[in-house]
Amino acid sequence: MNNLFTGIPENLPQELFQCLMEGEGVRIERIVSRGHVTAPNEWYDQKRSEWVLVLRGRALITFAEKASVTLEEGDYVNIAAHERHRVEWTSPDEDTIWLAVHY
Amino acid sequence: MNNLFTGIPENLPQELFQCLMEGEGVRIERIVSRGHVTAPNEWYDQKRSEWVLVLRGRALITFAEKASVTLEEGDYVNIAAHERHRVEWTSPDEDTIWLAVHY
Repeated sequence: MNNLFTGIPENLPQELFQCLMEGEGVRIERIVSRGHVTAPNEWYDQKRSEWVLVLRGRALITFAEKASVTLEEGDYVNIAAHERHRVEWTSPDEDTIWLAVHY
Repeated sequence: MNNLFTGIPENLPQELFQCLMEGEGVRIERIVSRGHVTAPNEWYDQKRSEWVLVLRGRALITFAEKASVTLEEGDYVNIAAHERHRVEWTSPDEDTIWLAVHY
């Protein structure tokens, strides 16, 4: 057993990605952002779909081909495979804790 | 887009199960308990594995063949397929909000 809100390093020069569970066809990951964003002009273009939930903090995801979404605590969104997206902004004043389910 | 912490009915005679996302080999579900527990002498015995996270409230899961676990906010546990378990207790004073990933 483990906790999603603990074990966050004091220094976070880069976004933190941690696998919490890897199973048949699914991977659950915790992501911690501290103002981090996707590099300029880069897009995520993923083979698998990703369901993502913000549990602390706040973030803005932009999509290449649809409207952007602001995610606050408890907000979730499904990102289909190959749906190009980027993290445009995360709260600079607090940690943004994400739960991502890749499937 | 949607929120995990909203849309909870005022009256909750039974535990609330809601599918948030159904994909290839994976189902993500929100469960809301308000003091609800598994019926006496019943066990969950599931074909698929289940990764479960408590986001609000508190719960106690007991297992037929291993030590029980208390889950508080942010705690998660993986329940393997056919690992018999029951929800022995959930906080009577508040809603317990779970996120379950069946895979």
